[in-house]
Amino acid sequence: MKLGIIGAGRIGRVHAESVTRFVKGASVEAIADPFMNAETEKWARDAGIPKIYKDYKKILSDPEIEAVLICSSTDTHSAISLEAIAAGKHIFCEKPVDHDVEKIKKVMDALAGTKLKYQVGFNRRFDHNFRAAREAVKAGKIGELNTLSVTSRDPAAPPVSYIKVSGGIFLDMTIHDFDMVRFISGDEVEEVYASGAVLVDPEIGEAGDIDTAVITLKLKSGAIAVINNCRRAAYGYDQRLEAFGSLGQVEVRNDTDSTAVISNADGVTAEKPKYFFLERYMAAYTAEIESFVNAVEKDTDTEVGAADGLAPVLIGLAAARSVRENRPVKVAEIAAEYGL
Amino acid sequence: MKLGIIGAGRIGRVHAESVTRFVKGASVEAIADPFMNAETEKWARDAGIPKIYKDYKKILSDPEIEAVLICSSTDTHSAISLEAIAAGKHIFCEKPVDHDVEKIKKVMDALAGTKLKYQVGFNRRFDHNFRAAREAVKAGKIGELNTLSVTSRDPAAPPVSYIKVSGGIFLDMTIHDFDMVRFISGDEVEEVYASGAVLVDPEIGEAGDIDTAVITLKLKSGAIAVINNCRRAAYGYDQRLEAFGSLGQVEVRNDTDSTAVISNADGVTAEKPKYFFLERYMAAYTAEIESFVNAVEKDTDTEVGAADGLAPVLIGLAAARSVRENRPVKVAEIAAEYGL
Amino acid sequence: MKLGIIGAGRIGRVHAESVTRFVKGASVEAIADPFMNAETEKWARDAGIPKIYKDYKKILSDPEIEAVLICSSTDTHSAISLEAIAAGKHIFCEKPVDHDVEKIKKVMDALAGTKLKYQVGFNRRFDHNFRAAREAVKAGKIGELNTLSVTSRDPAAPPVSYIKVSGGIFLDMTIHDFDMVRFISGDEVEEVYASGAVLVDPEIGEAGDIDTAVITLKLKSGAIAVINNCRRAAYGYDQRLEAFGSLGQVEVRNDTDSTAVISNADGVTAEKPKYFFLERYMAAYTAEIESFVNAVEKDTDTEVGAADGLAPVLIGLAAARSVRENRPVKVAEIAAEYGL
Amino acid sequence: MKLGIIGAGRIGRVHAESVTRFVKGASVEAIADPFMNAETEKWARDAGIPKIYKDYKKILSDPEIEAVLICSSTDTHSAISLEAIAAGKHIFCEKPVDHDVEKIKKVMDALAGTKLKYQVGFNRRFDHNFRAAREAVKAGKIGELNTLSVTSRDPAAPPVSYIKVSGGIFLDMTIHDFDMVRFISGDEVEEVYASGAVLVDPEIGEAGDIDTAVITLKLKSGAIAVINNCRRAAYGYDQRLEAFGSLGQVEVRNDTDSTAVISNADGVTAEKPKYFFLERYMAAYTAEIESFVNAVEKDTDTEVGAADGLAPVLIGLAAARSVRENRPVKVAEIAAEYGL
Repeated sequence: MKLGIIGAGRIGRVHAESVTRFVKGASVEAIADPFMNAETEKWARDAGIPKIYKDYKKILSDPEIEAVLICSSTDTHSAISLEAIAAGKHIFCEKPVDHDVEKIKKVMDALAGTKLKYQVGFNRRFDHNFRAAREAVKAGKIGELNTLSVTSRDPAAPPVSYIKVSGGIFLDMTIHDFDMVRFISGDEVEEVYASGAVLVDPEIGEAGDIDTAVITLKLKSGAIAVINNCRRAAYGYDQRLEAFGSLGQVEVRNDTDSTAVISNADGVTAEKPKYFFLERYMAAYTAEIESFVNAVEKDTDTEVGAADGLAPVLIGLAAARSVRENRPVKVAEIAAEYGL
Repeated sequence: MKLGIIGAGRIGRVHAESVTRFVKGASVEAIADPFMNAETEKWARDAGIPKIYKDYKKILSDPEIEAVLICSSTDTHSAISLEAIAAGKHIFCEKPVDHDVEKIKKVMDALAGTKLKYQVGFNRRFDHNFRAAREAVKAGKIGELNTLSVTSRDPAAPPVSYIKVSGGIFLDMTIHDFDMVRFISGDEVEEVYASGAVLVDPEIGEAGDIDTAVITLKLKSGAIAVINNCRRAAYGYDQRLEAFGSLGQVEVRNDTDSTAVISNADGVTAEKPKYFFLERYMAAYTAEIESFVNAVEKDTDTEVGAADGLAPVLIGLAAARSVRENRPVKVAEIAAEYGL
Repeated sequence: MKLGIIGAGRIGRVHAESVTRFVKGASVEAIADPFMNAETEKWARDAGIPKIYKDYKKILSDPEIEAVLICSSTDTHSAISLEAIAAGKHIFCEKPVDHDVEKIKKVMDALAGTKLKYQVGFNRRFDHNFRAAREAVKAGKIGELNTLSVTSRDPAAPPVSYIKVSGGIFLDMTIHDFDMVRFISGDEVEEVYASGAVLVDPEIGEAGDIDTAVITLKLKSGAIAVINNCRRAAYGYDQRLEAFGSLGQVEVRNDTDSTAVISNADGVTAEKPKYFFLERYMAAYTAEIESFVNAVEKDTDTEVGAADGLAPVLIGLAAARSVRENRPVKVAEIAAEYGL
Repeated sequence: MKLGIIGAGRIGRVHAESVTRFVKGASVEAIADPFMNAETEKWARDAGIPKIYKDYKKILSDPEIEAVLICSSTDTHSAISLEAIAAGKHIFCEKPVDHDVEKIKKVMDALAGTKLKYQVGFNRRFDHNFRAAREAVKAGKIGELNTLSVTSRDPAAPPVSYIKVSGGIFLDMTIHDFDMVRFISGDEVEEVYASGAVLVDPEIGEAGDIDTAVITLKLKSGAIAVINNCRRAAYGYDQRLEAFGSLGQVEVRNDTDSTAVISNADGVTAEKPKYFFLERYMAAYTAEIESFVNAVEKDTDTEVGAADGLAPVLIGLAAARSVRENRPVKVAEIAAEYGL
C-alpha cells in the first residue's frame, strides 16, 4: 500500500521512518510540506521517498496513493481531512482532529456513507504498557473496574508561545489522558470536575492556562477515573496508570533506558523514566500505523475512529469549563451546545 | 509513667501490649471496660496490668495514673475526654475525637489554659513509610509540593451494621487520609470536591453510604491533593502515596510479609500487601504512644493535637456535603456553621 | 518456662529482651556474666530478671530453671554445653558450637541417650525472607532444585583483632551461609571448592585470613550451590539468595527501613538495605527462641539440632583447606579425619 | 558502505534486516547461502538486497563490497575469514570464530599487518543493560571490582542433535558469559574452576555434555567472577549480572514485554523475562553492526577484536578440562599447549 505523508515536521518524519523500516506491505510514496527545504528534501530522499512536494494537493490527486497520514499543524487537520475524504483517500490523522467541535462534526459527516477508513493518532493506545493494562482489564483480570488513576506529567513545559496556541492544557495534553480513560475502561465519561493550578511557571498563568491539574471523571458504569497532570516532572516523562477492580488491580509503570540499578552509600538507584515522548512512544508510533494499514487492507474498523477523536475534545471542553466555573460539568451539557 | 487504658477492646489491647513490651519509662497501671469479663481479665493479668476495672472512673480518680488512653467506643471519646481533663490527666484519644464538631470544640475549650497534653490517634503519621515520605517533603527533597495522591483501600468492607453507625466513609475511613494530606503537605485544606459511588456492595448504598470515592482537595498553598478510597481491595490493605514537587517525587508503597519473589511459567510474583491493619501498622501504634509519653515527660506539644482531631472532621463534613450536593465545598463553609 | 541466660553481652541481651517481650510462656529467671558490672546489673533489673550472677554455675544448679541460652564467648560454648547437659538443662547455644570438631562431637555424645533439647543459634533460618524461600522450595514451587546462589556480604569488616581469633572467614561468617545452603536445599554438601582473595583490607591478609570469597558446593542431589562473601558492602548488609529449579526460581532480597522511593534528576532512589545485623534479624532472634521453647514444651526435635551445628563446621574446614591447597575438597575427607 | 552477508539463516537475516532498517550509511549489497531457495530469495528481494547468490565467493570477489558479515555455520567461520582477509574485506564474524584455537590463530596471523577490521559477534556487549553496567564499572561508580556474578540461563535446551555438535556448553553457551566477564571487568581470566551437572535432561549427559554449571574465575586483578548457567529456565531467558566493588554494587535485571503488574488474591505478578534471545537482544544486534560499520568508516579498532574471539575459547577449554579433571585449571596451561 502506498502512503502519502502531509507534513514533514517531527511527527511526519517519525511516521515516514516507521513505515519505511517496519510496516510490512506499506511504503511512503510521497511527502509534502509547505516549508519543504533542501535539508528536508535530502532527508526524504535518504529515507527513500520517491515524491517530494511543497503542495499536499499533489498527494491527494495521486491515484497511486491509497492513504494519507495528516501530520500538518493542528489547525489544518480538519480541512485537509475533508479534502482527503473528497479525494477518496483513507486517512490517518494526528491528534487532535480539531479543537473545534463543529469542524470535527464536519469530518464525521463527510465520512458517513463512505467506505473510507479514518484513524486518529492517539498513539498511547498502542504502547506496550498501556496495551497490557487494557488487555488485563478486558480479560476480566481485575473484575469490574471501580477506579482508574492516570498519572501523566511532562518532563518540562513547552514554550509559553506554544501554550498560547495550544488550546489549553486539557485539549493539548490531557486529551491523551481522556482518551486513555476511555481506552482502558471501555466506557464513556459522563461528568467532569477539574481542579487546576499554576505552580510550574507564572507565565503559563499569564497566558491564561494552568500547568497542574487533577481531573475527576464519572463514567457511565459508575466507576470513577482521576487524572493527575503537570507540565513539569524533574525526573522525566511520567506516564503511568492504575486500574482497580473487584478482583484486583493492574498497574503500569514507566519505561527506562536500562534495568541497571546502583547500590551505594547514597541508596539503591535505578534509572529515571525515559525523558522524551518520541523515545518513550517510538514503538507505539509504529504500531498505530501498522494497525491503520491493517484496517485499510482488511477493510475493518480502525482502532481509533473519528468518534474517538471527538469524545476527548468534548471532555476537554467540559474540563475547561469546570475549572472556569469551579463546578462539575456534564459532557452532555457541552455536547448539547453542539447539537450532539 | 503510669498509664490507664479506658476500653479493653481490640485497640485497647494493642496499646496495652505495646506499652508493656516497648515503651520505655511507661507501664499500664490499670485498664477499665464496662464489658470486662473473665477472658479479658485473664488477658489483662497475663499482660501484667495490676488494676482491672469495669468502671473507668476508677482510673480517672487514681492519683498514681498520670495519663489515660481513651480506647472506648467513638461516641464516648469526647465525654470521657472532658472528664479526664477535669481529673487532670494527660490524654491519648483514639481517632476520631467525635463526629460532632460541637463536642470536639468542647474538648478543645476544656483543654485551653491547662497544661495537659492531648494526642489524637492518627497512627499512620507514625508509620515508617509515611514518615519517610513526610521527612523527604519536609527536607525539600521534592521541592515545592504541587500534587499529592493518596491511595487508601481496605481489604474488605466492614459489616453493614457497622457502616450504619460509622458516620459515613469520610468520617470513618477517609478521615485518616485527610489527616495524611495535612501531615505530608504541612498545609491546610481549603476546598473539597468528592465523587462517590456504590460499587462494592449495594447494601452499603441502602445504608446511605458509599464504598468507592475520589476526593480532590485544594490546599492553601495552591497544591492539589487527591485521595482514592475503596472499601474492598482483593489483594490486601492498600496504603500508598505519591507526592510530586518541583524537584521530584516521593512515593511509598505497601509492606509485605517477605521479599520473596517467585518466577515461574505464570510470571514473576511477589507477595501481596499485608492484609490486616493491625499487622500493617503495629509498629506505628507503638511509636505513637512513645511519642505521647515523650511529650508528657518532656512537656512538649504532642505530634497530633486536638486541633488535628478537628480539621479532618471539618474536611470530612465538607466531603459528605460535596457528594450530596455535587459541588465543591469550602472547609470554611462548614467551619462557619460552627462559629469557627 | 523459666530460662537462664549465660552471657550478658550483646547477643545475651537481645535474647533476654526478646523473651521478656515476645515469647509467650517463657521468662528469664537468671542471667550470669563473669564481667557483670553495675551497668549490666541495672539493665538486667530493668528488664525484670530476678537473679543476676557472675557465675553461670548458679544457673546450672537452679532447679527452677529448665533451659539455658548459652551466649558466652565462642570458646566456652562446648564446655558449658557439657556442663548444662550434665545438669539436665535444655540448651539453646549460640553458633558455632565450637570451631573444633572434637569438642562438638563430645557435646553430641553427651546428648545421646538424654531427652534434652539442643538448638544451635542459626538465626537466619527463622528470618521471614529466608523462611519464605525455604517454604517455596519445600512446597515444590520451583520444582527440583538445580542451583542455589547465596549472597552474604557484611557492611564493614570487624577489627583485625577480632579477625585473628575468629577462626577465619569460613567458620566465622560463611558458616551461616553453609547452614543456609543446607536449610534451603534440605540437602547435604559433598564437596567444596573455595576461591578467596584479600581485596578489602591488606591487614586481614596479614592476619592470615581472606575478606572476599566465592565458594562452590556440590550437593548430594547433584545440585550446585554457590556463596559469595565479602567483609565490606558500602550499601549495607547484603543478605539475599536465589534458588533455581526445574519449574522456576525463588529469590529473596534485602529488607529496608521503608518503602520510600525518591525520583528526581539523579534517578529513582530506594533505601539501602538495613545496615546492622541485629536490626536486620531482630524478628528472627525472637522466632528462634520461640521455636526452642516450643520444642522443649512439646517435646519435639529442635529445628536446628547439634548435628546442624557440626555440618557447617566440617564444610568450613573443607573450604579453608580448599583455599590453602587450591583444590576441591570433599567434606568426607575432613569428616574421616575425625572418625566421622 | 556496501556489505555482503554470508549465510542467510536466522542470524544472517537478523543482520540483513538490522542493516536495512537502522544502520545509517550502510546497505546490504549481496547475500549468499549454499541452501539458497525460492523462499529465502523472496525474503532477500523483499528486503531490498540486489545480489542473491548460492556461492559466497561471488561476494568476496565483488569490488563494490567493502565488508562482509560471516553468518554461516560455525565450522566455516575461520576458513571464510581467511578467504575474506585475502580478498581484502573487513569482517564481522559471528561468534565463535572457531572452537579450534589453531584456526583462530591462523585468522589472527592473517590479519596481522593488514589494515582490515575484524569484529566478533559478541552481541551482549552492545545490550543496553550490560552496557549500562559496564559504564558504571568503568566510571568508578562501584569502586574497585571485587566480585562479579553472571546469571545466564536459557529458557529451554536445544535439541540433543545440536548439543552433540555444539562444542559443549562452555564453548556454545558460556562463551558469551566468559566474554561478559572480560567486558564488565576490563580484566583477564587467569584460572577457572567449573562444576557441572546433568539436571535438565539425561540425554544431554549421554551426549557427553552437562546442562547446569557454576564456573568460578580468578581474574588478574585478584577479583573473583562466578557464572551460573542452566539450559532451562521455566520463566524465560534469564540474563542478569551483579558487579560488586569497594564503593557499591551495580546490578542489571531482565527485560520484559511491559511494565504491567497485576495485584490480586494470588499475589503481585509482573511479567516474565523476554523468552527468546532474538527478541531480548534485537537492539544489541543492530548496535554491534553499527559499531562495526563505524570502526570501518572511521578506521578505529573494533570493539570486539579477534583476540576477544580467542580469549573466551581458551577459558572455555580450561573450564571443560576443569570439569573433566575436577581441578582448577589455569588459562595459561591451555594457552601454552597452543604456543600462546
